[in-house]
Parts: sequence; structure tokens; C-alpha cells
Amino acid sequence: MSTTTTRTTEQALEGLKTILADRLVTSQSVREHHSRDLSRFPAVLPDAVAFPQNEEEVASIVRVCAENLVPIIPVGAVSSLDGHIIPVKGGVTVSTRDMNRIIEIRPEDMLAVVEPGVTRKQLNTALRATGLMFPIDPGADATIGGMASTRGSGTTAVRYGTMRENILALRVVTPDGTVIHTGSRAKKSATGYDLTHLYVGSEGTLGFITELTVRLHPIPEMVSSAICAFPDVQSAVETVIECVQYGIPVARVEFLDKVAIGGVNAYSKLDLQVAPTLFFEFHGTPAWVAEQSQIAEEISANHNGTGFKWSTDADERTKLWQARHDALWAARALKPGCEVYGGDICVPISRLAESIVAASEDIAASFLTGQVIGHVGDGNFHTAYLIDPEKPEDYAEAERLADRMLERALAVGGTASGEHGIGIGKLKFMRKEHGDAVDVMKRIKQALDPLGIMNPGKMGQEG
Amino acid sequence: MSTTTTRTTEQALEGLKTILADRLVTSQSVREHHSRDLSRFPAVLPDAVAFPQNEEEVASIVRVCAENLVPIIPVGAVSSLDGHIIPVKGGVTVSTRDMNRIIEIRPEDMLAVVEPGVTRKQLNTALRATGLMFPIDPGADATIGGMASTRGSGTTAVRYGTMRENILALRVVTPDGTVIHTGSRAKKSATGYDLTHLYVGSEGTLGFITELTVRLHPIPEMVSSAICAFPDVQSAVETVIECVQYGIPVARVEFLDKVAIGGVNAYSKLDLQVAPTLFFEFHGTPAWVAEQSQIAEEISANHNGTGFKWSTDADERTKLWQARHDALWAARALKPGCEVYGGDICVPISRLAESIVAASEDIAASFLTGQVIGHVGDGNFHTAYLIDPEKPEDYAEAERLADRMLERALAVGGTASGEHGIGIGKLKFMRKEHGDAVDVMKRIKQALDPLGIMNPGKMGQEG
Repeated sequence: MSTTTTRTTEQALEGLKTILADRLVTSQSVREHHSRDLSRFPAVLPDAVAFPQNEEEVASIVRVCAENLVPIIPVGAVSSLDGHIIPVKGGVTVSTRDMNRIIEIRPEDMLAVVEPGVTRKQLNTALRATGLMFPIDPGADATIGGMASTRGSGTTAVRYGTMRENILALRVVTPDGTVIHTGSRAKKSATGYDLTHLYVGSEGTLGFITELTVRLHPIPEMVSSAICAFPDVQSAVETVIECVQYGIPVARVEFLDKVAIGGVNAYSKLDLQVAPTLFFEFHGTPAWVAEQSQIAEEISANHNGTGFKWSTDADERTKLWQARHDALWAARALKPGCEVYGGDICVPISRLAESIVAASEDIAASFLTGQVIGHVGDGNFHTAYLIDPEKPEDYAEAERLADRMLERALAVGGTASGEHGIGIGKLKFMRKEHGDAVDVMKRIKQALDPLGIMNPGKMGQEG
Repeated sequence: MSTTTTRTTEQALEGLKTILADRLVTSQSVREHHSRDLSRFPAVLPDAVAFPQNEEEVASIVRVCAENLVPIIPVGAVSSLDGHIIPVKGGVTVSTRDMNRIIEIRPEDMLAVVEPGVTRKQLNTALRATGLMFPIDPGADATIGGMASTRGSGTTAVRYGTMRENILALRVVTPDGTVIHTGSRAKKSATGYDLTHLYVGSEGTLGFITELTVRLHPIPEMVSSAICAFPDVQSAVETVIECVQYGIPVARVEFLDKVAIGGVNAYSKLDLQVAPTLFFEFHGTPAWVAEQSQIAEEISANHNGTGFKWSTDADERTKLWQARHDALWAARALKPGCEVYGGDICVPISRLAESIVAASEDIAASFLTGQVIGHVGDGNFHTAYLIDPEKPEDYAEAERLADRMLERALAVGGTASGEHGIGIGKLKFMRKEHGDAVDVMKRIKQALDPLGIMNPGKMGQEG
């Protein structure tokens, strides 16, 4: 495939210019916009940013880059949190901005076919008339392609699964410019290696996703939400475990610690009791929602939860979940001028209480302010440490706290990232978590991207 | 790794004898038992059958076989349906018979850790006291390892997913004898390539699974079942689509055509109306089960379903589902001395009615007797053609009918196998279904099993 053994960036850019004309951009401002994500990692400028409009153009770009050994960094909404899209080895950032068509919605099959640049909100707006929804909600209005690449999830994963469970099929441009499809429109299949799941979560290191077939779910007839305060973290988490074991299909169940509740009260003008708190949401028929809420209330009461009240009022619910989504901004508002250093682990649910307690104790013993919030039904939680970007000692302390939490997660059978992914930030934990399986991953990377041009310096190549 | 470039079977058997003593068996009867599965494909004798007792022994076996270029065929309950475990290139069949320990049950994490030879019924018996269950039910009392390797599913997949959704983690001996682990005990993760899903469904061609961490589900407080007869296939399938779109979490919804109902009536001494029929099952709290049943009854009535009656009587339910599971034997009983040639496709649910109608019309126009039954909530159905094993023309006709059905499935975006897998029988459809993605699969096989010793002549190597 390759006609050179050294990188020939100038030649690549010339070739790309021929394909894309003014949709190959080398201006400083556009390159800067694609030089970093929402993480703490330093910016690296790509050599150029490409805006293809269709799969054929992506395939042409990949072929030109392969011939010239120039890295390709696929990019969606630039909302990743661990440096995934920073072009650490330079190269061409290829944005899905102009590939944002909803190709097909098939309500009768409960699926939609979209280009990778479609955002989740865009898709849900288009679905309004169908009675169906795409429930995965990572907070940001991320692109579906980006969410697939990072195996994203969020608050509703406890009920509807993550991107892992919600992608039926893909179209992918492989690193030699071949277009393949994976999966099918059938709900299940037993034919061949599961390439769909291999590309989901591969963070752009194995190919460029050009089309996704996603599963849709019925918009529930009724939605109710509830809040309950607990005397301690343990009681809150035990309530969640019992709800899940009882088989209540909670649609959301989020934990906020005292600091987070304080922040949310201030930022979103609420007057919640300042205590470890669960936010619940239930989906279903009116009778079933009432029954679920009642069972959850009983279980909460058994664990000394207080102030449980459930509501089907849409305004109240929207306010509550907006407050939850704003928890990160609320945290920042606690200390003006600060930035947030985030953590994201997932553990077996039986180890969740001790994991949260340990993370909280670390924060209490530290000179940094921090909070814990979590998608507790999945055993996934986030820490947010407030750091002064001018102070290296803040940064070092946040890293120390996050790494300690992560080591503890691995020690109890958990994972280094529940939903944010590896990016650059967690490469150092790959071998600790996966052991010799990292070598299997490297062999797959080598087999599918022998030139190493897809998002190099990341998963599959390093770590 | 390999110290020879030609296969040296004698040397391998000597080496294995040293490891396994009398658990390396070369008797004719044991080799014959492992020479074929439940499919129509001709038997091929393995050179020997090995019965390791633990992971270390499996790793030693793999190393000896790799050194001598001798094929390894992993085998569980020998209940595969498409020739998966036939040693088409000879070699050593490695049985999981003696690796059937339940290593750990963690009710609070809703997971169990098992060796690959544990069967689903064995696991459910061990779970009784916990209030949890492992719901995947392919019919046969298959091993968990075998079900994982073939990405098995069955009647409950519509509610609980297939093996794809129910395995959290694996331990695998790779083809060079290295032991790796994949996944974790956390419910979700965004770290690294999804090796768990790569091994699930790989039919023993990429490594030997030595341990599985599976998800458990609460045993529902109440179970109800219902039967409903319909004037035609279309009405039955539309009922299913509407139930799924309404968001009713049916635990099972099975379709049986007229021929199947006739067979079931005769075989299981029932007096069901001879018509296209749905069997439903609902899981949940008593109130919720009642509500689901009522909604399903209303939807059925809208599609001219008759005789809908639901029951929570355990004996009645057991009889019904036993009859469903016996449908294959019931079919055979329709024509004494005959054998069954089976088909297994999965299509987008909107194409299910036409797919079933076309399959039925093919049967009606053929000189063979046949029936259609299906896991219709997933768009998955099976044909069973009754053939006289002495008549090559019966065999040829069954193959023609099955292949026609399969071609139609691919034409409407479906898959060549919903749950039985590729084995030998469906290799010829791999490229038709997956196109150039087959080359990606072959590169993965080559990268992970460069000597080609894991279940050779199957998926990833041929097709």
C-alpha cells in the first residue's frame, strides 16, 4: 500500500487538497480548535483539519494518508475527556462535522441509521414523531460516532445499556481505505467475529466509522423521578443494590455526595437537604411507574432514607436532571477561577460503597476541594477535584488522588474507566488492568493498521 | 514458538500423555463420540480426546500442540448444530467435561464465575438459594463455555439478551499457551479493545476459554404465560412488533406455525387450536405481570388473535414450555424414521412476517414436510425439514429450501444465523453476509493464531 517509508506530509496535504479543496483547512484557528479536548492535556496542533462530506471522501483521505504515512485523527464534537483526539504525533485531523445526515429511521425495526457526525440531541429531535428515543446520555451533546468510538454511556445506561449494547451495525473505512460493514439489522447474530464490538470503544485507532445503525427504544408512557437523602454513603449504595436485585428497572439512579449537593443547591437554586443523596427516575406505564416508585421508597426507608418524594411533574423533573447535569459546572462555581480534574472508575457494585467512601476520605484529607457523583446503578462514579490551573502542586495532588482511586478500583475487580475511555490519560493503566491481554490488543492493532496511521500514540499501540 | 514446520502428531500425543496420563484418550468409542455434533455433517475422528482438569493443563496442552502443529478442537456438550466441533483437519479434541466447577457466586454483584464445562442447568441449580438465575436457554443443557463460543441465545433472549450481553469477563488460553483475562467484574468499561466480545462467538478459533464471569438476573416474583391463536402469520408477527414497540418487556414470545402446533398437540398431548400461534411469558411483580398480560391481550385482539388466556399456574406453564422445547422431537414424530434438517435465520422484525410466509410457501411447494417456529421477538426463526436419511434427494431439497431462506434473509438486512453459528455449514455464506469484513476477520485470525491450530478449517480461516 505505502509507496514511501518516511512520512511525506507536504505530499499528503497536496493530495488532500485535490480531494477536498477548501474543506482541507490549515488555518491556525481551526487547527487550534482541534488541538485539544476537554482534558487537562497540552495542545498539539494537527498539520491540517479535513472536513469530508461522505464515505468516499473519507476513503480517499485514508488512502492518501496511508501512502504518505501521515496520521489520521478522527474527531466528532471534541468533547472527549482524556486527550483522545489530541494529535500527539501530528497528522491530519478528520472531522465528522459535515457528515451529519440521518440516513434512515425505521420505527418498525426500532433502529436508525446515521452518519457519525449526528449528535444525540439531533437524533432525538428527528425521532420525536415516532414515539421512539435514543436514550444514551453522556451529558455533552456528543456525536454518535464519538460516543461509539469511546464506548460512551451516562445516566441512563443502568436501564438501556451503553453504546456497547446499542449499536447494531457499522460501516468503517479500514486503514488501507477499504470500506467494510459490520453487523446487520437483525437484533442478534451468530455469524463471524464480532467486529462491531471491536470498533466500538477503539477510540479511532482501528478505522474510521462512517455510518452507524443504532437501536431505538420506546419513549415511556410515563416518567417519574424521586429524590432521597441518606445518613451516609453506605446506606445510599445499599439501597441501589437492593433496587437492582429486586429487579426494578430503574431508568436512572444517580448518587451525589454532600459537596455535590451543596454545589447544586447554590448553582441551580435548589434547597436540597445537604446529605448523600440519590436521584431516581422510573420509566413505564402509569401503574408500573407508581409501583416501582413505591418499592424504591420502601427500600430507601429500610436504609434510613428520608424525604423520599416522587413526582411525575415534567418541569420539576427537568429542573432536577438539569441540576444533575450541571453538577460539574456547579463544582467549578464553588471556587471561582478553578478548573476540574476528573476521575472515572467503575467497580463491582458490592465494592461501590467502600470505593466512594475511600475517595471521599482522600478528598477530606487533601488540601483540594472535591466531590463525588456517580451512575451508581452501574457501579460507576466520578470524582471532580478543583484545581488552580496556575498551581502545579494542585495538579500533582489531583493526579495523586485520581490514581489512588484507580488503583483501588483495579484491586477490587473494577476498571480504570467506566465511560471516559483511555485517551492519553489512562494509557499507563492499560497493562495494570489488562495484563498480557494488552499484547493481544497490540497484535490486533498491528494486523489491522500495520502502518500505524490511525490515531497513533494511543490505545493498541502504547500502554 | 513452533519447533517444527510439519505436523508431528505422534510426538504431540506423547507429550500430552505425560501431562494427562489416562485423561488423554485414544479409544475408538470416545473418539467417535467427539467425531460429530447434532448436525448432518459427516463424522471425522480426532486423533485423541483430552480431558484437562484446569487452566494450567489447558495451557500445557496448547503449548504441546503448537510445538507440533497439531489442531486443537475445544468441545463442551457436543450439542452444536452446524458441525462446529467436527475435527475436519484431525488433531486433538479438548473437552471441558472435567472443568465444571462453579468457582464463585456473588449475589450482591449479580454475577457468577464458572469453568467452561458448567452447564446452564447446573448453574441454575446452584443459584437456587440466591433468588437469582442465569436465564439464557438455548434448549439443550449446553455448557456455558460452548454457549459463549457460539454466541448462543434461545427463548429468553428477547428480554435478557444473548450470551453477547451476559458475559462480563473471560479467561482465555491463547494459541501460544499464554493465559489472559478479558473484561472485569465492573458492569461497564471504556478501557481497551473489547476482547470479551471478540472471543464470544469465535467458535474456538481464537483461543480456549477457561473461565467465564456471567451476569445473573433476579428470579421474577411472578411469571405468567399466555397462548394466542391468529388467523395468519402476519397478524401474529404484527402483534409481536406492537408489543415490543409498546415497551412491554416480554420475557419470551415464541411463534409456532400450524404444522408445529399439530406436532406439539400429538407429541405433548395438548389440544391447542391448529393455527399460527404465539406463546408469551411475562416476568415481574404480580401487578405488573397482570398489566403486561392485559396489554398484550388487547394488542392480540386488535390483530384478530383469539383464545388469549393467561395463567400464572406453574404446572400449566411448565407443560406449555416443555411442549415448545419438544417441538423438534414433535416434528420428528410426525414422520417416524426421519431426521431433521434445520434452518436458523434472523431478520429485522419488520421483514419477519414476509420471511416466515416465504419459508412456509417454500415448504408447501416442496415434497418435504416442514415446520416454522421462532423466537419472534428477536426476528429469529427456525425451519425444520423432515428428511429420510437414506434419500439423498431429501437432503438436497432441504438444503435448497434452507439456502433460499438464508439468501432472502441476507437480502433484507438479516443474518445467516441467529443463534446456531457458522460451524462448517454456513461458511459458504460468510462472504455474502460480511463482504470484505471477512478479510478483516482473517487478519485477526492470522494475528492471534498464526499457526492456525485452533479449530482449523472453520471461521476466520475459511469462508
